[in-house]
Amino acid sequence: MAPEQPQRFAEGSPRVLVAGATGFAGALAAQLLWRHPGFELAGITGRSEVGRTLQELYPRYRVPLRIAELAPDSLEGLDAVLVAYPHAAAAPTVALALERGARVIDLSADFRLRSLATYERWYGPHPRPELLELAAYGLTELHREAIAGASLVANPGCYPTATLLALAPLARAGLIADVVVDAKQGISGAGRAFDETTHLSMAGENILPYKVAAHRHTPEIEEQLVYLDPSKPDVTVQFQASLVPLDQGEQAACYVTPTRAVGERELAELYGAAYDDEPFVELAERPPGTREVLASNYCRMFAAADSHTGKILVFSSIDNLWKGTSSQALQNLNVMFGQPETAGLA
Amino acid sequence: MAPEQPQRFAEGSPRVLVAGATGFAGALAAQLLWRHPGFELAGITGRSEVGRTLQELYPRYRVPLRIAELAPDSLEGLDAVLVAYPHAAAAPTVALALERGARVIDLSADFRLRSLATYERWYGPHPRPELLELAAYGLTELHREAIAGASLVANPGCYPTATLLALAPLARAGLIADVVVDAKQGISGAGRAFDETTHLSMAGENILPYKVAAHRHTPEIEEQLVYLDPSKPDVTVQFQASLVPLDQGEQAACYVTPTRAVGERELAELYGAAYDDEPFVELAERPPGTREVLASNYCRMFAAADSHTGKILVFSSIDNLWKGTSSQALQNLNVMFGQPETAGLA
Amino acid sequence: MAPEQPQRFAEGSPRVLVAGATGFAGALAAQLLWRHPGFELAGITGRSEVGRTLQELYPRYRVPLRIAELAPDSLEGLDAVLVAYPHAAAAPTVALALERGARVIDLSADFRLRSLATYERWYGPHPRPELLELAAYGLTELHREAIAGASLVANPGCYPTATLLALAPLARAGLIADVVVDAKQGISGAGRAFDETTHLSMAGENILPYKVAAHRHTPEIEEQLVYLDPSKPDVTVQFQASLVPLDQGEQAACYVTPTRAVGERELAELYGAAYDDEPFVELAERPPGTREVLASNYCRMFAAADSHTGKILVFSSIDNLWKGTSSQALQNLNVMFGQPETAGLA
Amino acid sequence: MAPEQPQRFAEGSPRVLVAGATGFAGALAAQLLWRHPGFELAGITGRSEVGRTLQELYPRYRVPLRIAELAPDSLEGLDAVLVAYPHAAAAPTVALALERGARVIDLSADFRLRSLATYERWYGPHPRPELLELAAYGLTELHREAIAGASLVANPGCYPTATLLALAPLARAGLIADVVVDAKQGISGAGRAFDETTHLSMAGENILPYKVAAHRHTPEIEEQLVYLDPSKPDVTVQFQASLVPLDQGEQAACYVTPTRAVGERELAELYGAAYDDEPFVELAERPPGTREVLASNYCRMFAAADSHTGKILVFSSIDNLWKGTSSQALQNLNVMFGQPETAGLA
Repeated sequence: MAPEQPQRFAEGSPRVLVAGATGFAGALAAQLLWRHPGFELAGITGRSEVGRTLQELYPRYRVPLRIAELAPDSLEGLDAVLVAYPHAAAAPTVALALERGARVIDLSADFRLRSLATYERWYGPHPRPELLELAAYGLTELHREAIAGASLVANPGCYPTATLLALAPLARAGLIADVVVDAKQGISGAGRAFDETTHLSMAGENILPYKVAAHRHTPEIEEQLVYLDPSKPDVTVQFQASLVPLDQGEQAACYVTPTRAVGERELAELYGAAYDDEPFVELAERPPGTREVLASNYCRMFAAADSHTGKILVFSSIDNLWKGTSSQALQNLNVMFGQPETAGLA
Repeated sequence: MAPEQPQRFAEGSPRVLVAGATGFAGALAAQLLWRHPGFELAGITGRSEVGRTLQELYPRYRVPLRIAELAPDSLEGLDAVLVAYPHAAAAPTVALALERGARVIDLSADFRLRSLATYERWYGPHPRPELLELAAYGLTELHREAIAGASLVANPGCYPTATLLALAPLARAGLIADVVVDAKQGISGAGRAFDETTHLSMAGENILPYKVAAHRHTPEIEEQLVYLDPSKPDVTVQFQASLVPLDQGEQAACYVTPTRAVGERELAELYGAAYDDEPFVELAERPPGTREVLASNYCRMFAAADSHTGKILVFSSIDNLWKGTSSQALQNLNVMFGQPETAGLA
Repeated sequence: MAPEQPQRFAEGSPRVLVAGATGFAGALAAQLLWRHPGFELAGITGRSEVGRTLQELYPRYRVPLRIAELAPDSLEGLDAVLVAYPHAAAAPTVALALERGARVIDLSADFRLRSLATYERWYGPHPRPELLELAAYGLTELHREAIAGASLVANPGCYPTATLLALAPLARAGLIADVVVDAKQGISGAGRAFDETTHLSMAGENILPYKVAAHRHTPEIEEQLVYLDPSKPDVTVQFQASLVPLDQGEQAACYVTPTRAVGERELAELYGAAYDDEPFVELAERPPGTREVLASNYCRMFAAADSHTGKILVFSSIDNLWKGTSSQALQNLNVMFGQPETAGLA
Repeated sequence: MAPEQPQRFAEGSPRVLVAGATGFAGALAAQLLWRHPGFELAGITGRSEVGRTLQELYPRYRVPLRIAELAPDSLEGLDAVLVAYPHAAAAPTVALALERGARVIDLSADFRLRSLATYERWYGPHPRPELLELAAYGLTELHREAIAGASLVANPGCYPTATLLALAPLARAGLIADVVVDAKQGISGAGRAFDETTHLSMAGENILPYKVAAHRHTPEIEEQLVYLDPSKPDVTVQFQASLVPLDQGEQAACYVTPTRAVGERELAELYGAAYDDEPFVELAERPPGTREVLASNYCRMFAAADSHTGKILVFSSIDNLWKGTSSQALQNLNVMFGQPETAGLA
């Protein structure tokens, strides 16, 4: 193996630390930053594995930096911190980083919901509720402007990302009377958890719905739908997730009962208007398999009107670890620091 | 390898031929018959592979009979014929077998629909429409009595099997106002087809919806829902299927908007009344993974009321090749010939 | 779901308890016994999950018995105990069962090795060395007579099963000068362990050799090779195992440098003589994929002479959980209690 | 989707055409060239799918160029042609491109063997034997200098790549007395073939050795071993390949009987001397899973001495489509055109 090559970021690039780099999401974010021409990966921290290189933990990523403990002074001199901790554990670190003057992207659920009451119903007491009002919701295509100016960006969950991109054109047009979302995801969505849901001899050759009628991503989706269509403040979403035996990949199948009849042409115009200029949303001519977006920041979707039932169907595919989590964080970082939105991602 | 053991069926057992034993469905049916204590597997035929043993084609099945061509006189002296041909190709063989006095189970779509018009809209001209009125629909739990006396049983498709068992208690109670069915299936559902949908490097690590707004199983499901609830002759079903990367397994997720509010207790009573005495339907306390029914004739399901949306959710898992196809054919044969319904299947 | 059906064993059948029924091996053994016509499954015990039914733990198995703690009096009145504990933990239970008058099949490594010194080099101090001399090595095809009369049978490891069946005809003929065994196994071989080796997002899309130059199954294989060919007391085997991303299945590829040239015809005669009358060994005409023996007690193999290198190649496939573990235990029980060797297994 | 971005190669970059871009190998090579900063992808041709974009065939690759027919004048004005045709079909196109003044990398077997006699024994008559002497063998790490100056580079097979990199340090030191290579590969190694070897319901849950004692890669490996150690002109290799159920990944397990005892330290020195300065060979401290090199040009290996048997074990992992085929072709292009060897590949 050749000696380490130098990082290839430009002189004077913003310095970014990844807090929580041992899990799937933080590790991938660190690797993407390591290869990014416009950011310096200033450090990686973890609550375990301290002293080991990321390369030792994830040989594929070939990042030679060592995991450090997160000490307050590791937050000095940074331009941004990407926090990849579980919910509730994230908020205190977010607060600390903000105090030190860094801008923050938080991958947890802690700042995704506007409503404190909703948060506490699903997650328990909020550690730092006073920061909620600072947060921009980090679904880039829907909140680009707010993200550009925000000190704190709450990166969305992977299910809301796929679902909201699929539904946004219909919601904005006030067309959603009722909606069922059946989402399927690969096993990486369960993270590094070692249990029945991830064991190959149990998760393999299986299709497993989970969290029936009680998925934490439902309120996140509903809040954003109200943002997109404030005329329907009581919208409810029937959201259901299933694990299927693959590694990375996620698809939301959305079954919309429209408020009025919508034909193929109108549908094409709505989606074209929303996404023709988006660098990371692709409109396909048939339902996109998740392989088509594997290891990429793309969301690929297909919308159709069913003349038999009158419903509108939208199929939206992403890589749950990329556009669903870590590469969308990089997309947001690009937006926050004035870099080309596709930098390091194309 | 030891010399072949004798078949172990009882003296005087009904003699059954499998026509079309080279595909996944016919081959499994032949193997189940070979091990069945109450039937004699009288022969297996195929349009290819003539002269080879089934064991050579499917080493796992260890059936030493040889594939023969289907000649008219191979249909003499039979009690039953199980026809595993593609639609349209099946009907002439079904007719021939009936003429020779055999009872028939047809695995194709040719006799599943009551309505000739509906058949011809989806499949083209029907080769033998005069036989339609003879056919019992072979979803055992719904049509047991008709199957017992029928000369011709149209074995249902795998998607209708999982879907209708899930919906029947609600339909009979007149509770279905609207329904979305999102069904997932393993790759064996595509049969021996060698193409992009079955190649491991394309089907693996993929989630692929197909036949959007145009699945042939939709009218089959709708016809049976009208049978279950004649008060709703215009019921439509939003049915969507996806391929996921496993071999055998299928799950229907049914999202029902009920005609009135239904609580957990009423739901439990409806499903208990429908299935507590059924040998092959299991009511689970959480959504059943498809592994739980792998290589079995069981349908395992879970129903829940979502108080947030008011919808009823039913998840129904089967093995698409077993209860979805071949073992349900055996269950029907048991019913037709007065054998214990679980014989050869438990 | 219908009321539980009665067990279907014959009146007066030997009563067998499975100690350690929560792991993959014990659970499968319990399920096979539950369906066996000639044994009564008298109980199942576990060190965890006490009070739950096996069906709750393994829904596929549909065994309604409850896990009990193993108390000394649970060993009274039994004809046999099948012990499925980890090595060292097994020996005390084996001893207890023998004292109570039961015959024992032990699935652990505790009694597989004749040589106490070898055991202690690989596993540490032996808890009950005085029982070693009682044990028959439970590779049925090689030790059928000893098994029939033994009070204690040490069920072999899955790797030695596949390897020794492949090599026995050559070893008995004194033909092995040198041998490399490259064995591949599915993830179920790692059992219920929840870690990096079993997580679908780590084990999937991976080929992973492990325990290089230090596999505990090596001395077990070597001891048996000396038993088969006492003229080579110092035989060494280069044994290497790899995990590949499937659930159940194992294949040993054996590369033998023979002591003299061996042609195809002699090879066919050697293997035919060894296995033509064996009910569970199949000689194939090409290398057998592991799918061909999935969920069965068969070992399927293919032997070839390579005229280019002069080596002999033998490929031997088993299901690691069946012939490699639990169904071979049933095969041995059949032999021990005078039942047809294929009872409950064909 | 945003308008196509411009290609990002530097002004004046060499112009490269990919002939045969519809198969797995050619398509990946085209995509790697499309993203390469130092080459212009001048065109892609195919014998089918003419007029479709590569993106339509392989949505993941997002290459908007259209497949063209290969006409003689499509070879004008090119600096290089990468030929991805089956053996025998490749040679005429190679000849044509050379005549037009382009340098050629051929992915087929047509120019890999020095010996015409060996070629014809395995592949039949050679279409253009007079070109054999022009060809450099494109295993970059072994033939870098010859590749730099060659007009024709024969890209090695994936099995020889993994195997020869593993064995080269031992071969050069004259240490190989005997060698067994057991290689495992994912299903993409079978290419776009639609048959029993690639159908997920047949290839899944399977381990399948193939081409026993008759693999075409054996003479390729042996020829190169003689090149590395001319003192052993009659070396034979026991090479065996198996398909395992994953998509991309390949591992060669090499079992070497050395000509004399070799210890761990000497082994480490031999491999360090060979590879410490190689940008794409990584020496690992334990056997490398193939996931560690997925979608990369790396070969990752581990060598160990087994004191029990005296043998040397080397495990070598590559991605069969990348270092085993297409990215190695890019590595060679970099060498041929004086670009940094890692350009477009790191």
